[in-house]
Amino acid sequence: MLFEALELGRSLAKAEYDDRVPALREALLDAQERARQAGLPVVIVIAGAEGAGKGDCVNRLLDWLDARGVAVHALDIAGPEDAERPYFYRFWRRLPPRGQMAVFFGSWYTLPIVEHAIGHWDDRTFEDALARIRDFEQMLADEGVLLVKVWLHVPRKWQKKRLEKLESDPSTSWRVSQQDWDFHQLFDEYADSSERALARTDTGACPWFGVESQDRRYRDVAVAERLLEMLSKRLVAPEPPRSAPEPLPEPTSVNVINQLDLSLSLSPEDYDQQLDDYQGRLGRLSRRLGEAGRSVVLAFEGADAAGKGGCIRRVVRSLDARFYRVIPIAAPSDEEHALPYLWRFWRHVPRHGHFTVFDRSWYGRVLVERIEGFAAPEDWQRAFHEIRDFEAQLVDAGTAVVKFWLTLSREEQLRRFEERERTGYKRYKLTREDWRNRDKWGAYEAAASEMIQRTHTPRAPWVLVEAEDKRWARIKVLRSVCEALEAVVGPDERPRKGNGRDGGRSGSKNGNKKKSRKG
Amino acid sequence: MLFEALELGRSLAKAEYDDRVPALREALLDAQERARQAGLPVVIVIAGAEGAGKGDCVNRLLDWLDARGVAVHALDIAGPEDAERPYFYRFWRRLPPRGQMAVFFGSWYTLPIVEHAIGHWDDRTFEDALARIRDFEQMLADEGVLLVKVWLHVPRKWQKKRLEKLESDPSTSWRVSQQDWDFHQLFDEYADSSERALARTDTGACPWFGVESQDRRYRDVAVAERLLEMLSKRLVAPEPPRSAPEPLPEPTSVNVINQLDLSLSLSPEDYDQQLDDYQGRLGRLSRRLGEAGRSVVLAFEGADAAGKGGCIRRVVRSLDARFYRVIPIAAPSDEEHALPYLWRFWRHVPRHGHFTVFDRSWYGRVLVERIEGFAAPEDWQRAFHEIRDFEAQLVDAGTAVVKFWLTLSREEQLRRFEERERTGYKRYKLTREDWRNRDKWGAYEAAASEMIQRTHTPRAPWVLVEAEDKRWARIKVLRSVCEALEAVVGPDERPRKGNGRDGGRSGSKNGNKKKSRKG
Repeated sequence: MLFEALELGRSLAKAEYDDRVPALREALLDAQERARQAGLPVVIVIAGAEGAGKGDCVNRLLDWLDARGVAVHALDIAGPEDAERPYFYRFWRRLPPRGQMAVFFGSWYTLPIVEHAIGHWDDRTFEDALARIRDFEQMLADEGVLLVKVWLHVPRKWQKKRLEKLESDPSTSWRVSQQDWDFHQLFDEYADSSERALARTDTGACPWFGVESQDRRYRDVAVAERLLEMLSKRLVAPEPPRSAPEPLPEPTSVNVINQLDLSLSLSPEDYDQQLDDYQGRLGRLSRRLGEAGRSVVLAFEGADAAGKGGCIRRVVRSLDARFYRVIPIAAPSDEEHALPYLWRFWRHVPRHGHFTVFDRSWYGRVLVERIEGFAAPEDWQRAFHEIRDFEAQLVDAGTAVVKFWLTLSREEQLRRFEERERTGYKRYKLTREDWRNRDKWGAYEAAASEMIQRTHTPRAPWVLVEAEDKRWARIKVLRSVCEALEAVVGPDERPRKGNGRDGGRSGSKNGNKKKSRKG
Repeated sequence: MLFEALELGRSLAKAEYDDRVPALREALLDAQERARQAGLPVVIVIAGAEGAGKGDCVNRLLDWLDARGVAVHALDIAGPEDAERPYFYRFWRRLPPRGQMAVFFGSWYTLPIVEHAIGHWDDRTFEDALARIRDFEQMLADEGVLLVKVWLHVPRKWQKKRLEKLESDPSTSWRVSQQDWDFHQLFDEYADSSERALARTDTGACPWFGVESQDRRYRDVAVAERLLEMLSKRLVAPEPPRSAPEPLPEPTSVNVINQLDLSLSLSPEDYDQQLDDYQGRLGRLSRRLGEAGRSVVLAFEGADAAGKGGCIRRVVRSLDARFYRVIPIAAPSDEEHALPYLWRFWRHVPRHGHFTVFDRSWYGRVLVERIEGFAAPEDWQRAFHEIRDFEAQLVDAGTAVVKFWLTLSREEQLRRFEERERTGYKRYKLTREDWRNRDKWGAYEAAASEMIQRTHTPRAPWVLVEAEDKRWARIKVLRSVCEALEAVVGPDERPRKGNGRDGGRSGSKNGNKKKSRKG
């Protein structure tokens, strides 16, 4: 969109405004109620030039709508809860659940446009940010969110006149700061950056709508009519068709999982020594995390009874209870179900100094949901891209991300199931579902292999763990966590009374025969 | 509990510890799983003297339990989200849902004990705080939460020796600060304040358990055994019986509601002028709220079609959309349902500068839930006390609280129902339930009268609104909101170009005949 096209001087006379508004309001309220009943989530972005009246426009909109079920978010200044997490955390956390609306001003566009216009960001960084926005909005559309994006424009001359007018009236002069004038000086730079941002993000699913905003009446009616139009179209649009479930995938004869050497093991003596060493190291490293302004996300996946819980227990034992959470992932709550898929993981993204350990994770989308048909093929197929983006955002924000896939043989799984049936306090861990999943062993192996290949990235790697021997698995996990921590806080400093042991790297009898495979 | 009784020098030899721990852990895991399945929420408070090892003890406990489903909270330092809200907000927000556990160290006891011990708080303030704690814990018990409170004690001499020992070792000397020594000097004062706090809050439903903590092994086993004991008892305890629903209440011939003068009304001309005046005044006052470090909570109750929505709309029209939320209260979500009743209102308590407007409120407990039998008599009867305490906490934290009860006649309600059936966009507002509620008119009048009498407090008053005439009702609501705001931010300052109107206080023809009744 070229802003020139928004400098036509359109306006609306008071008489016509008074004439049109009552019917417009009634239609808006009606559409809002139908959206509520249809469980349609609506996100409204009000962006645009300084002085175009974004705040007034939002106030008017909220007045015309039923304010119940509408949340308004101005996120120009990040609160501390937001600042220690990825940029999009603040937007994810405020997405509207089904049937509700959220209005964002100061949306995800503000920061990239400002940073680029004032020259802090080069073109490459700016384009990366715009690509991320496009991904975010595409995800919203795919998740069934109606996204209404409105750009309010005023011409350069008009902005100047407005500032002068405000400044000349003693009752409004306080509203004009030096910063406003500084920004005004950069009007053309802002316009260039904004036009580029709009061009990159004006997609079929998430189109922009430009409104010239010198005249308030014209502006408010145009915005409200746009919202009404998009609501009305969407409410009568047919549901997008969903493909039939695909046949269960079959594992290839050679894949990243079946090539693992399940004979790798550790003797009890080696295990005890290395466990001590790594837990000490992890304890020391973890205490430097907060100071370094970093955090850690660990995700554990693998077949039932592969030993995820035991590995997690060995990791968190070194940590301070105040600084970690273990999140077991099961069926979503109804609040979680009313929001886009990744919301329930975003809500647990850790602050600086904290660990979040996921016992099962967002990968459920491409494992159990794919195999069991809980997600349509369209939905789990797009998940690979969405997950990579999610993890990249965590890493960009200073979070170390490590994902563990634990592998054991079918025979060993059976042995552990039978053991669980015999052992008192382990009995609850075994459900009928575990037996059912076991029947789909090959399909899970195939799905996991594809998942690993498509989401193993340099900055958020998979660590493939040979878990036939629990001791081997636990040490490998601990070592990987230590290495990931060292990558973000620097090398471990051993206490002076250290006894010169080699830090547990020398392996077991078997461990030396074949190199352990990582990722 | 006298701390003398916790200075017996109890300890546990390593051999015995190693002998007892495996069975203890197994039993703990089993009890935890049964609590999960039973949907039992568990709150664990670990409090006690400096140096008694609260942190170590929590780490050990979390190691022995299944960390999934346990959250640990150290809340000594309030984050900014918490600091702008009542003290208990941080605890409410972190209560565990059904089937999960939360461990608090630095619990609600820390602040009162410290402030009293160092002399910042006098006895009266301290006792008030302890009474509030007792109410909070009683509420938890009544809501079915298992509360396990543990106090870790060490003797004065032992604390001193420990500080000296830490200080003398170069690798630990950094852990000792001047503050630690200052606190140690006040050991006796802390002990006195703590003993008093424990005595006041050692109740039948929420007993304390003291543990002497010089010996780590003894301490950790004693704490774990206490938790196990309380879990085990609770899991086999019979459900507390619930009384049968009471018969519907009948209104007395004279009550606060039927004495309202429903003939009060405003002419359209008076209404327009006063609406303008009050909305301007409200707009100006509201913009000073943030600076004053204050916030506002409004609750609207009343019969169906009494005009709550219309009043709310006139109030929020003056406000900046970024600073208010309208929360419609309907059935709780499943996340809300898994927590104590008031949790879903606490989650919306506003920050400084913000308004939260509740369209229906926590009073549902003593209105619809009472009348329809959704809450047992025990539960809605205790609600009066809990609600008064909730509102008092808001007011203490600088929040203006105003509650509106809108009254109209049965005939006028019928007229409005019929109008809604005729008018397009209002039709959705009318449900079958509205017609059913109408049949219980008398019961609602009786319940509302009792509610108003028992929860009308000087600092969180009810405003009874004669709502037969919508204009009258809206102006009365607006005026009351303005007055409540002036009470917290000071009088309105009219803009200089003010024309000397009297602020809309001079009333209508009818308005002067009889004084409008407030609360």
